[in-house]
Amino acid sequence: MDASDLEALARAVAAGELSAHELAERVRLDAVADVGYAQVDVARGLRTGVSEVVYGEGKRPEEIAGIVRAMRASGQERILVTRLDAEKHRALEALGCALAYHAEARAAVAGELPEPDGNGEILIITAGTSDGAVAAEAELTARFLGNRVRCVRDAGVAGIHRLLRHADEIARAQVIVAIAGMEGALPSVVAGLAACPVIAVPTSVGYGANLGGLTALLAMVNSCASGVSVVNIDNGFGAAYQASLINHLPGKAS
Amino acid sequence: MDASDLEALARAVAAGELSAHELAERVRLDAVADVGYAQVDVARGLRTGVSEVVYGEGKRPEEIAGIVRAMRASGQERILVTRLDAEKHRALEALGCALAYHAEARAAVAGELPEPDGNGEILIITAGTSDGAVAAEAELTARFLGNRVRCVRDAGVAGIHRLLRHADEIARAQVIVAIAGMEGALPSVVAGLAACPVIAVPTSVGYGANLGGLTALLAMVNSCASGVSVVNIDNGFGAAYQASLINHLPGKAS
Amino acid sequence: MDASDLEALARAVAAGELSAHELAERVRLDAVADVGYAQVDVARGLRTGVSEVVYGEGKRPEEIAGIVRAMRASGQERILVTRLDAEKHRALEALGCALAYHAEARAAVAGELPEPDGNGEILIITAGTSDGAVAAEAELTARFLGNRVRCVRDAGVAGIHRLLRHADEIARAQVIVAIAGMEGALPSVVAGLAACPVIAVPTSVGYGANLGGLTALLAMVNSCASGVSVVNIDNGFGAAYQASLINHLPGKAS
Amino acid sequence: MDASDLEALARAVAAGELSAHELAERVRLDAVADVGYAQVDVARGLRTGVSEVVYGEGKRPEEIAGIVRAMRASGQERILVTRLDAEKHRALEALGCALAYHAEARAAVAGELPEPDGNGEILIITAGTSDGAVAAEAELTARFLGNRVRCVRDAGVAGIHRLLRHADEIARAQVIVAIAGMEGALPSVVAGLAACPVIAVPTSVGYGANLGGLTALLAMVNSCASGVSVVNIDNGFGAAYQASLINHLPGKAS
Amino acid sequence: MDASDLEALARAVAAGELSAHELAERVRLDAVADVGYAQVDVARGLRTGVSEVVYGEGKRPEEIAGIVRAMRASGQERILVTRLDAEKHRALEALGCALAYHAEARAAVAGELPEPDGNGEILIITAGTSDGAVAAEAELTARFLGNRVRCVRDAGVAGIHRLLRHADEIARAQVIVAIAGMEGALPSVVAGLAACPVIAVPTSVGYGANLGGLTALLAMVNSCASGVSVVNIDNGFGAAYQASLINHLPGKAS
Amino acid sequence: MDASDLEALARAVAAGELSAHELAERVRLDAVADVGYAQVDVARGLRTGVSEVVYGEGKRPEEIAGIVRAMRASGQERILVTRLDAEKHRALEALGCALAYHAEARAAVAGELPEPDGNGEILIITAGTSDGAVAAEAELTARFLGNRVRCVRDAGVAGIHRLLRHADEIARAQVIVAIAGMEGALPSVVAGLAACPVIAVPTSVGYGANLGGLTALLAMVNSCASGVSVVNIDNGFGAAYQASLINHLPGKAS
Amino acid sequence: MDASDLEALARAVAAGELSAHELAERVRLDAVADVGYAQVDVARGLRTGVSEVVYGEGKRPEEIAGIVRAMRASGQERILVTRLDAEKHRALEALGCALAYHAEARAAVAGELPEPDGNGEILIITAGTSDGAVAAEAELTARFLGNRVRCVRDAGVAGIHRLLRHADEIARAQVIVAIAGMEGALPSVVAGLAACPVIAVPTSVGYGANLGGLTALLAMVNSCASGVSVVNIDNGFGAAYQASLINHLPGKAS
Amino acid sequence: MDASDLEALARAVAAGELSAHELAERVRLDAVADVGYAQVDVARGLRTGVSEVVYGEGKRPEEIAGIVRAMRASGQERILVTRLDAEKHRALEALGCALAYHAEARAAVAGELPEPDGNGEILIITAGTSDGAVAAEAELTARFLGNRVRCVRDAGVAGIHRLLRHADEIARAQVIVAIAGMEGALPSVVAGLAACPVIAVPTSVGYGANLGGLTALLAMVNSCASGVSVVNIDNGFGAAYQASLINHLPGKAS
Repeated sequence: MDASDLEALARAVAAGELSAHELAERVRLDAVADVGYAQVDVARGLRTGVSEVVYGEGKRPEEIAGIVRAMRASGQERILVTRLDAEKHRALEALGCALAYHAEARAAVAGELPEPDGNGEILIITAGTSDGAVAAEAELTARFLGNRVRCVRDAGVAGIHRLLRHADEIARAQVIVAIAGMEGALPSVVAGLAACPVIAVPTSVGYGANLGGLTALLAMVNSCASGVSVVNIDNGFGAAYQASLINHLPGKAS
Repeated sequence: MDASDLEALARAVAAGELSAHELAERVRLDAVADVGYAQVDVARGLRTGVSEVVYGEGKRPEEIAGIVRAMRASGQERILVTRLDAEKHRALEALGCALAYHAEARAAVAGELPEPDGNGEILIITAGTSDGAVAAEAELTARFLGNRVRCVRDAGVAGIHRLLRHADEIARAQVIVAIAGMEGALPSVVAGLAACPVIAVPTSVGYGANLGGLTALLAMVNSCASGVSVVNIDNGFGAAYQASLINHLPGKAS
Repeated sequence: MDASDLEALARAVAAGELSAHELAERVRLDAVADVGYAQVDVARGLRTGVSEVVYGEGKRPEEIAGIVRAMRASGQERILVTRLDAEKHRALEALGCALAYHAEARAAVAGELPEPDGNGEILIITAGTSDGAVAAEAELTARFLGNRVRCVRDAGVAGIHRLLRHADEIARAQVIVAIAGMEGALPSVVAGLAACPVIAVPTSVGYGANLGGLTALLAMVNSCASGVSVVNIDNGFGAAYQASLINHLPGKAS
Repeated sequence: MDASDLEALARAVAAGELSAHELAERVRLDAVADVGYAQVDVARGLRTGVSEVVYGEGKRPEEIAGIVRAMRASGQERILVTRLDAEKHRALEALGCALAYHAEARAAVAGELPEPDGNGEILIITAGTSDGAVAAEAELTARFLGNRVRCVRDAGVAGIHRLLRHADEIARAQVIVAIAGMEGALPSVVAGLAACPVIAVPTSVGYGANLGGLTALLAMVNSCASGVSVVNIDNGFGAAYQASLINHLPGKAS
Repeated sequence: MDASDLEALARAVAAGELSAHELAERVRLDAVADVGYAQVDVARGLRTGVSEVVYGEGKRPEEIAGIVRAMRASGQERILVTRLDAEKHRALEALGCALAYHAEARAAVAGELPEPDGNGEILIITAGTSDGAVAAEAELTARFLGNRVRCVRDAGVAGIHRLLRHADEIARAQVIVAIAGMEGALPSVVAGLAACPVIAVPTSVGYGANLGGLTALLAMVNSCASGVSVVNIDNGFGAAYQASLINHLPGKAS
Repeated sequence: MDASDLEALARAVAAGELSAHELAERVRLDAVADVGYAQVDVARGLRTGVSEVVYGEGKRPEEIAGIVRAMRASGQERILVTRLDAEKHRALEALGCALAYHAEARAAVAGELPEPDGNGEILIITAGTSDGAVAAEAELTARFLGNRVRCVRDAGVAGIHRLLRHADEIARAQVIVAIAGMEGALPSVVAGLAACPVIAVPTSVGYGANLGGLTALLAMVNSCASGVSVVNIDNGFGAAYQASLINHLPGKAS
Repeated sequence: MDASDLEALARAVAAGELSAHELAERVRLDAVADVGYAQVDVARGLRTGVSEVVYGEGKRPEEIAGIVRAMRASGQERILVTRLDAEKHRALEALGCALAYHAEARAAVAGELPEPDGNGEILIITAGTSDGAVAAEAELTARFLGNRVRCVRDAGVAGIHRLLRHADEIARAQVIVAIAGMEGALPSVVAGLAACPVIAVPTSVGYGANLGGLTALLAMVNSCASGVSVVNIDNGFGAAYQASLINHLPGKAS
Repeated sequence: MDASDLEALARAVAAGELSAHELAERVRLDAVADVGYAQVDVARGLRTGVSEVVYGEGKRPEEIAGIVRAMRASGQERILVTRLDAEKHRALEALGCALAYHAEARAAVAGELPEPDGNGEILIITAGTSDGAVAAEAELTARFLGNRVRCVRDAGVAGIHRLLRHADEIARAQVIVAIAGMEGALPSVVAGLAACPVIAVPTSVGYGANLGGLTALLAMVNSCASGVSVVNIDNGFGAAYQASLINHLPGKAS
């Protein structure tokens, strides 16, 4: 859907052939910028409240640059590209596609990060220092989506007092992202202390039998604590995305 | 922690030996009603905002009755017992432990269901008629926890128009619980249409290679749509619990 | 079986020692060009209607060149070599075995691609841009086998309108190849919209718990939509091969 | 969509407010008979060329009866209910829902089986006598959908001559359904002899390490023969459904 | 090896044909009571310090009775039979093989339980009430092997204060058996609080994705806390057996 | 192929239209007794040296009786039916199909067991008493196929001396069948002591993490000892069958 | 907790506001040195009797150096860093963080190894030469933690006499660490010969179906021998850690 | 055990202190050359009839050289080292340890290959050209152990006539090694044609869902043909070893 399409729709409304509601629906469902190798969902912001994010893995720099261009052409100023290694980032710059690179998060951002506008604060907790990259991806994503974020790293359950000393932050959070590899026990303990939803992220950190994170994932899905749900292995982005949705929900109508 | 303990704490506050905040903390963390085979977490309501729920599976009727008694003794009037088959429910009644039984949900409730007091509405969608029992558990749990609930059943993706005709309800929901067996594709499509978080529940419905629901679980965790997180197989309770947490979060401080 | 063998058989028919039918059977079942490390099935075209294709993975350039030579010697002009990386292709050229290389498809072709002679059109749909290499292998294979092909890329179910805008092409296709990684939901939605068979190809694209494509494979096998069957992970060749068989079946005898 | 809806649409066409094409589209995508626990896809025949089939497993007799009633009310005379055990069938009859029961296939049919109208013949081959129930489900489904069917049972690869004696039937088939448990080798051998697509059905027949059919499924997906695709474990219905789609495709436009 | 064998050996020592050490070795390695269907290891007490225990599962009552008889004949007065359901126990009694039955532990004992003679106390902790049967098997085994035992039930990590209130018992234990199903997080938290070895027992308690206890097992093996080792699913016997070995080790030679 | 077919072939040889060798080939490859639900391989004895055996599981009594009848009609006097429970055996007798039943082996035999005619002795060793049923199936199969058999039960590696006391029998065996559940370690130790091939049979005996025998199977396939190969879980028949083939091989031509 | 915190506590004791016991408890549970990316558990020695060890994998050299500095600052002189490859060790040295490197064990140590002070001797046995690196990690860890260690390498069960010749050392050990890949049978045989606990370590050594050590892990968990517990794949550190705990337990109070 | 040990034993026999049988036993069970990192089983030839083979993977060149030296010192002239890549072979040569390298088999041999002395011929069949390396390892091993070998490559079941044309070789073989990746169907078909044992070797050749060979392994273990047993993935050595044992068994005593 380009400008002329939108204009045509508007004219139809003016002519009484289309209601304003119908126009909105058409835009909501049909807007795609087709760049050949990708159909960019340029109206995603209208539909879901969050602009489309580019998943960088498995895409060539030329493809990423083209998608970014299409998004900008549709008016999206702030763009996040995840799973982007440093080499690909350099290739993007060579293609004239300038993005600010965040190394630990393996992600890049076009435009400024917004002012936080969520209801409360997202608390990100990791079990170990080695879970740092996943936490960084989650933190950047959450900030990109307009959230205030607090981070506590290395608070795994083997030294439970390292976690309990953060009990107040846990009690005050609007939503929590709990990140852990190995046996993935952190979210269970956190959810028992919290009054808010906990999004659990299993990581691929650990000795052989963590099976690339599958053990932590299964453990988290089996959490004995209520209030825990789980995203994919090492998927800091996905957890932060859902946390942001939760943090931006409307309060009680009154 | 029994009454005398609490009194002692109060006297300490009166004497200036303890601040009010400390008393609250002590109650928040230490209250357990020990009935031998169980340590009932009677102050869970204070700590997490939701009273403890009894998971009926693997517990003998005598144990369930004892736990219910302990919860009532601590002042909890409204109690939910999940995973309770009809036979065990009859055994509970024979023990003088009266609970209203909900057959499709395989759960029982003591006390009245509360008036809804959440921010918005929880939408429960199932992919097929065979997912009914899980949906019923989710619906009862959500109502028990004070939520308004809307249900759409049998809206699986193989007939996508059956889902699209509910697009408005999807767009208006505060939080969605999407329930599906087989390939578990429903949450991905729903999340693409929604502006709110989607809690996905895999079910054990399907032919051999759904592996008792594991296939649906893995598929949902891999959802290509952002905004999806996942709970355990057939765990309608867990999904509704987290949905309720989300639906009761405070709105923006202003 | 070389020419003299065939001649001998024919003489036997002439002499009444062999029926014409028997001659055909002997050719159909017994023709093998033995090159030591391989028994090339040079009469496969007679038997199954499709000439043998060379699977390049795990074979040394010398072996591939030898097999190609044997096929040409048996009269096969048009040859497809799949799973051939660029380096091996260069090695083949150095060995004097000239083949046109298709980089995205990681495959090479000897001879011209034929004119399409199938009944209708094969539609190839991918869920994401990252599934491109598999789609390219499927497209090249289908063209090599004499099919008209249409491609739609990046039409995953998380933005269902990106798929629905191609509903007409889906309704008109003779057979569809649906390619998706992550949760593999695309074929289910497509099959619900189509009136023709859907061959599903799981890909290894996604975060950790897609288990190298196994999750997508299992999900596709569990499709809630009728009319879906599944091939191996990343096996664009296999899907296109079967699609071509379907597209070349005889219509109704009348 | 009920009759009055359809009438309203028709009037709109008469009034020039809707084209005939638009009416067809609306019917194609929007027709659902909502019976509470199910949204019956009553226009599926229009959309995909095949009427909806009822999957009986996990549905209560009352639900099945209601769905059958809704389908009949929408004008569908011929109805197939799969995965229906004898006891449930008796319960249906007690509810006044009369269906002809096919015991080996564990399925029931309302109305007469149609005259075959496909392009050719579907050949169903099983590896062993123990695969009989799956073959029966496939055969009934194929006949229900208007196909001529030929069955060869117990032609497993351990006695290859039992298969080779059917080489002519294999060569003449329009599409083949190959059913096998244990190591699932049958489809590979069949596909090497056939010139048509082979739909493979893994079964749960075998000693411990067949893992309830998962081993056969994985083996079939890995078939070294081109032209094989796979459906779910024991899913005779799904294989026959796709085979029927293939057998009813239009031939070459000329 | 019966008495006459032993006598013969002794005479050989007297005659200088065998050293006393050799006699001990022969007894240690060669003593077996062969009852046809079993080779009872009657000298196991000499060799490992613990008498052989009878694993009741998969053995017919006649076989168990025969083995018990052989053990008694070799002088063993105190015998433990594990995994013995109530019905089999009754069958044993009917065969004149009297054993005291412990229903929750599904085990039976011949002879009196001994006075505790270990170095300290074994602490058994369970995560939930539903883990009771495994705890009972562990407790009975530990007492049978001469240990003082303390039990804490239902101290799962979702209510961490239920565990912390037992911090002193944890700190004082000589060895701990930690029993948990679902995500199996309990041993990690316990080991962080303890100064002694923790033997973890995964149980088959939980929703679908605990995979019959495999998830808990894998999680425990991946424990982020040092000092944890793991036994088989639901294997309360095995954990208590090793705990007893640890509790009976000699202290420092001085 | 019935008698008249064979006669026709023979006449053709007499007439010089067929060589004797061709006749043998035809019989060897083409003989099948088709009873509708089964194609009985009546010439299997000619081809592989061992008559076909009936796998009883998943077959109805009528089918088994029909297959036995067909085998007898083709001249096979001695027939083994495996995986036959007692109830099915009674149903066979009611159908007039008399077979001698072996309860522990869950198998039945028609005709007399033959005199042993193998080269040496087959040694069957089990790890535990609970592996008895698998051993019984193996022993009966071996005797049915004409082998001398020796059995050692309950010689698991946890009491290594129970195994070492049979070192001589191990050293003298012509071929060994080693049967074990749990960790499946027995074949490794046996193969280290033996000079002959060891066929390993994993059993489904054990606590939860033996995964129905899969753990033992994988362990045996990974045996650190050379000379071990493995058959399916609980497949005593398969192990004995291969052991018999080995025991009947021709010695050195001289 | 830094020095001023401790001082404050001490003053409170002096003032009678805190008992000495309370001070100890506070230190035991609350001491953490927060270095941003890690919360170093500096009082772990007080709590569990063993100082914290640094797991080097997944941490950057700067992070490791910072953690080591924090530990030294808190008074810990002897520090072990595991899973440290040679390159990272050189980077540490370049950062001025000097540690003695042990190449086979892939670990480094700060400070002197202590005099052994355990109750007895830890015996480490490996099945094969290829398990050497895991044994080296276990040995270094055990020595670091104050244990006398004896090593027997390459004593796998396929040559059982290689193990039996060490029967005396096995009988005399205080605790045994048994290390094996492939089928993981070693611990079962060892435990049958020993009177002390056996900690089993599965390794990732072997052909394809050892599944990266998972097969050995599952086999060891299923050990038919009592007295075996298991740690993670290749986790020589974890086994030695628990062995050291066992070797330092107090003997019988008298 | 060195020469002086043997002499001492012999003197004991001479003195009547030891029987000749005992001497043999002692040599059979106790001979080990201890080189520190390995206990070389130098009398394995006496015990099992086959000299020890060196598994090269995971061993350093120095270790391999040392083991070879120890074997030579004990009188073994002919030595096989498997899983030896070209680089390690060069390192061995640099250490003065000269071995003839076989590149496709990734193995090396010291000394001359022996004259074949088995009873018959070992037939090695592969399904595809890509299985060549495994076949080469099997062939070299079989020749090293004194067998006559025949090889048929690329005879997979997708072109069944490629296999049937070798039916005579299959019928004449003494033992068959059948090697296949992908779905692993080859051994089933071969065993149906053969009268001798078939050792199946799964390979890691194939697309994604062959799971590194696990699919082929499971399929082969589930073979519907009797007479098949299975070794580890890609384990050409193991299959040939067992085939050689079978080929060297004594014939019938007469």
